[in-house]
Amino acid sequence: MLEQPEVSIIMGSDSDLPIVKKALETLKKFEVQFEIKILSAHRSPEVLFEYSRSLDERGIKVVIAAAGGAAHLPGVIAANTILPVIGVPIKSKSLNGLDSLLSIVQMPSGVPVATVAIDGASNAAILAIQIIAVSNKNLKSKLKMFKTELKEKSLAKNKNLVI
Amino acid sequence: MLEQPEVSIIMGSDSDLPIVKKALETLKKFEVQFEIKILSAHRSPEVLFEYSRSLDERGIKVVIAAAGGAAHLPGVIAANTILPVIGVPIKSKSLNGLDSLLSIVQMPSGVPVATVAIDGASNAAILAIQIIAVSNKNLKSKLKMFKTELKEKSLAKNKNLVI
Amino acid sequence: MLEQPEVSIIMGSDSDLPIVKKALETLKKFEVQFEIKILSAHRSPEVLFEYSRSLDERGIKVVIAAAGGAAHLPGVIAANTILPVIGVPIKSKSLNGLDSLLSIVQMPSGVPVATVAIDGASNAAILAIQIIAVSNKNLKSKLKMFKTELKEKSLAKNKNLVI
Amino acid sequence: MLEQPEVSIIMGSDSDLPIVKKALETLKKFEVQFEIKILSAHRSPEVLFEYSRSLDERGIKVVIAAAGGAAHLPGVIAANTILPVIGVPIKSKSLNGLDSLLSIVQMPSGVPVATVAIDGASNAAILAIQIIAVSNKNLKSKLKMFKTELKEKSLAKNKNLVI
Amino acid sequence: MLEQPEVSIIMGSDSDLPIVKKALETLKKFEVQFEIKILSAHRSPEVLFEYSRSLDERGIKVVIAAAGGAAHLPGVIAANTILPVIGVPIKSKSLNGLDSLLSIVQMPSGVPVATVAIDGASNAAILAIQIIAVSNKNLKSKLKMFKTELKEKSLAKNKNLVI
Amino acid sequence: MLEQPEVSIIMGSDSDLPIVKKALETLKKFEVQFEIKILSAHRSPEVLFEYSRSLDERGIKVVIAAAGGAAHLPGVIAANTILPVIGVPIKSKSLNGLDSLLSIVQMPSGVPVATVAIDGASNAAILAIQIIAVSNKNLKSKLKMFKTELKEKSLAKNKNLVI
Amino acid sequence: MLEQPEVSIIMGSDSDLPIVKKALETLKKFEVQFEIKILSAHRSPEVLFEYSRSLDERGIKVVIAAAGGAAHLPGVIAANTILPVIGVPIKSKSLNGLDSLLSIVQMPSGVPVATVAIDGASNAAILAIQIIAVSNKNLKSKLKMFKTELKEKSLAKNKNLVI
Amino acid sequence: MLEQPEVSIIMGSDSDLPIVKKALETLKKFEVQFEIKILSAHRSPEVLFEYSRSLDERGIKVVIAAAGGAAHLPGVIAANTILPVIGVPIKSKSLNGLDSLLSIVQMPSGVPVATVAIDGASNAAILAIQIIAVSNKNLKSKLKMFKTELKEKSLAKNKNLVI
Repeated sequence: MLEQPEVSIIMGSDSDLPIVKKALETLKKFEVQFEIKILSAHRSPEVLFEYSRSLDERGIKVVIAAAGGAAHLPGVIAANTILPVIGVPIKSKSLNGLDSLLSIVQMPSGVPVATVAIDGASNAAILAIQIIAVSNKNLKSKLKMFKTELKEKSLAKNKNLVI
Repeated sequence: MLEQPEVSIIMGSDSDLPIVKKALETLKKFEVQFEIKILSAHRSPEVLFEYSRSLDERGIKVVIAAAGGAAHLPGVIAANTILPVIGVPIKSKSLNGLDSLLSIVQMPSGVPVATVAIDGASNAAILAIQIIAVSNKNLKSKLKMFKTELKEKSLAKNKNLVI
Repeated sequence: MLEQPEVSIIMGSDSDLPIVKKALETLKKFEVQFEIKILSAHRSPEVLFEYSRSLDERGIKVVIAAAGGAAHLPGVIAANTILPVIGVPIKSKSLNGLDSLLSIVQMPSGVPVATVAIDGASNAAILAIQIIAVSNKNLKSKLKMFKTELKEKSLAKNKNLVI
Repeated sequence: MLEQPEVSIIMGSDSDLPIVKKALETLKKFEVQFEIKILSAHRSPEVLFEYSRSLDERGIKVVIAAAGGAAHLPGVIAANTILPVIGVPIKSKSLNGLDSLLSIVQMPSGVPVATVAIDGASNAAILAIQIIAVSNKNLKSKLKMFKTELKEKSLAKNKNLVI
Repeated sequence: MLEQPEVSIIMGSDSDLPIVKKALETLKKFEVQFEIKILSAHRSPEVLFEYSRSLDERGIKVVIAAAGGAAHLPGVIAANTILPVIGVPIKSKSLNGLDSLLSIVQMPSGVPVATVAIDGASNAAILAIQIIAVSNKNLKSKLKMFKTELKEKSLAKNKNLVI
Repeated sequence: MLEQPEVSIIMGSDSDLPIVKKALETLKKFEVQFEIKILSAHRSPEVLFEYSRSLDERGIKVVIAAAGGAAHLPGVIAANTILPVIGVPIKSKSLNGLDSLLSIVQMPSGVPVATVAIDGASNAAILAIQIIAVSNKNLKSKLKMFKTELKEKSLAKNKNLVI
Repeated sequence: MLEQPEVSIIMGSDSDLPIVKKALETLKKFEVQFEIKILSAHRSPEVLFEYSRSLDERGIKVVIAAAGGAAHLPGVIAANTILPVIGVPIKSKSLNGLDSLLSIVQMPSGVPVATVAIDGASNAAILAIQIIAVSNKNLKSKLKMFKTELKEKSLAKNKNLVI
Repeated sequence: MLEQPEVSIIMGSDSDLPIVKKALETLKKFEVQFEIKILSAHRSPEVLFEYSRSLDERGIKVVIAAAGGAAHLPGVIAANTILPVIGVPIKSKSLNGLDSLLSIVQMPSGVPVATVAIDGASNAAILAIQIIAVSNKNLKSKLKMFKTELKEKSLAKNKNLVI
């Protein structure tokens, strides 16, 4: 990945990787360059702090942050950058991700996190691509094709519908 | 508003206006042009459908959609545009907005909605601005100033802290 | 199925089929004709839109719509038809169907969805039959027999109750 | 009300009347005849029992039942009639109607209740009308006009939208 | 079981039996006579109705009723008897028994159900025994011994505590 | 109150009195003698401990315990007596009594608390009376009259039903 | 306050002050020195960061942090100090503090926050005092007197109990 | 373990041991002496009562109490000691630990329990160590090293991140 990454993907723990992989795959499919980090708001706060502050000047355009439980990662990044931050609540062991969702989405005035569904890493990637596409006609075309594909795949399933 | 609007704000009902106003005020503060509509996924579906499909070609860059209860508005718009759609769950009478939040955030794979906090209309505007700012240096500067202001206002409150 | 279908069954995704099958079996048992489609409010919105608008004139009497997560399918159909729409919330991976239930049942004034239990596809079929039976004496008789059977099966279990 | 009522509206307590009134108003608007009763699954079970069993032969076509808390009324009626039963969960004092909703919607296999939103009495009436309209062209026309009105009222609000 | 039963155990479905068995075992251990029935508030309402109304005159002292989902069984029995009714919420497939619990415990004024924990059938039996013991010295002695046993078993576990 | 009390009513705090009063009124109506105490599992544990241990030998037959939040009062009493303990969850400021309900009802195996609805103090009294009535024919007659009154009051409301 | 403060009280917003005041009053009553700050994890992250890192060397012994919604404040402080951090979830507008509670208590392994009840600022102060008292005999005596007072005040309320 | 224990670990049932073990391991790693007991607020209340009252004079500094369901153990201990009590909500079978969490955290004014995450036994140990470290420089050093380790382990995972 020698090209300039446009998306930074950060997860709080390597246990989030099986979910986060779906974001990577989606970005690769759209040929959007990204970098990926394991950084914790609680275990490596100063590294996360410095990293978050560097994102804009390093040319990153959008951040995807995935975390579970008391999921502070997306909010802490959003506090330290002016870039749009997309939060992915990871399904938690005890409360099924309701804790992750509320910890990420209920941000105070002034510091939004763009929250997607619990375990919705693939949609986080789509959202990141939509954001970059605002000023990228090539990506817009790919998104239109993607929407058409979505439709066609969905409709094609009617053919095999044996009842 | 003769200039090209960059943000479209859609609310499901005029009862959402007191909350949505906070989005307008924030966009005005940042001098981002917008248009605003009352369109319902349930009461005026075909108008919403046509409107959603026209957004991209009409030059809109980001959509903010606010709705309460079984809040389908943001998701239905997202189904009909490749633009990033920001969902604002409106606090509902009976379930305090938990229904609105889950109806908006739990979108299926392929069609994300960037969800903010319950009644978080001001943050929806900030997020829209962050998205436009990805390719707009002037807005980036304003966001940096906004972040500094947020900090200064918050810290200034320490001066009056009588205990 | 050359006869005119009276019930349309729509599911958001083919992953809903194992649950939706229970509705098919119940309708077959009552010899009520139906058609079945996979149509998504988010992936194939225009096809769903056209399909929903055609239901009444094509002679369909009742619609059953099953979806999970941010389950907009039943509400979007209800927005586009005057037929009664029965919503089946599908149990979701993270929130156990609470999201599906609230997304379906909490519809705004003017556009009801007749919601049944989470994964309650068989009951959706019974409800559809009850609705058609309002003007169909033959179906009323079958429903009375069904109620008697339900009772007898339930009471018969007392015979094998070893304690 | 000398004409044959087509809808029976039953509420568990007279404290539910302020909500239930919205159903009456809607039925009157559509000129659908109804009867109304206060009958409790817990306080007057044998009267409710007899009443529920008489509904079909007395020519009632649809039942609307409203109750709060451990809201057993709609389910108990559904157990004793083959008519479609629409349940209206009334917002409760402590749990905001979540108890009412779950008590009504989560019915076991074989005995559905068509559940509408918490305090959704007006939608219960619309649903009852949709059910009767399945075999009533006049009501179908009224429903089409109602849908058009809904749309027009919703869109008209855009005119007064001062921002 | 030729002796007069003092406790009636009713379950809504035979699928509740694995949980209800714990109540049987506890009653047997205390040598309290019981009878057991599968009766559904929704599938066999008139049989349940008659049975509930006969309990007092047949010499039953306490009722244990177990049900899941929209669990109306205990409340419907309580509506038809002056005997104390103990409700056991059965853990449900989708909502983990929260629906069962709220449907049983949130009874309206005048008709209580003595609710125990989700799947708490053994405790329902203990409670039934405590109720009968109010006027039965022999059972009081057994309950005192049971409490001593509970304590001793709990404390004995400290001996094997390898750390 | 010189006569032997049969019911002990314990509340965790005097702020619970407005709710608990409904239990007193019901017991008075049935002429059941009671005593009432403010005792806290957390503020006066040793007094509660001694009091709980004395209840049976002092001739009390049933205990009603009301508490809110982390409502340990009913469970702690149940741990220290073989009498049936009825728990009344008091609606709490932040979580509307869901915390009180779960803290009271979810007792471990061996130590039941007979839980009634949130703020259901009147029903706690009815349940206490039902328990005493198991061996008291006079109270049984009163409960039958009470059930008849409940029915008649409920049905009488139909007369004033202006629609 | 010239003396060395032992407790640092931090709130995320000045809107939290009415609740936080109860902590101040309790600390004053116990004559425990404290300092108080308004610092936000989202609006003034770098100041919070520096402040949190300085706490231990500046002689602070315990931290109390109050915040609402996506309440990241206590967790972010805990990430940056080895001192015990007590979290006070503030009741939020929409979700009644459930979001605040889960955002604070569900911390990942390695970085605990000692969470008290929603709006439980007074208890946060008691807990801070208990922590300092571990090595402070004078405070232990005060805590014993406080416990005695709690008991006496609670029991004294029995005198005025008119029934 | 001949040395004076500083931490007392109490669990309500031996079924909690698999979770509680994580606390033991953490304390051992920090070479903090502890004792461990199985004592139930409901099954062995008087032993728990005496044990709780003896903790301070026996030299214990902090208590960790783990329990599930209607988890009264930590609160009952806190009522009987002036030592800081850390509560560990154990994930329960039906409600996933939400009942345990609310039963432990929502303590009334005057009697706090320092609550950690559901199944957060390891964090309970860290919190106990932080509390003891307030007056123990050696433990403070170990906590600093632990924080460094946490960071390094977390960052090291970036090396193996194959994407």
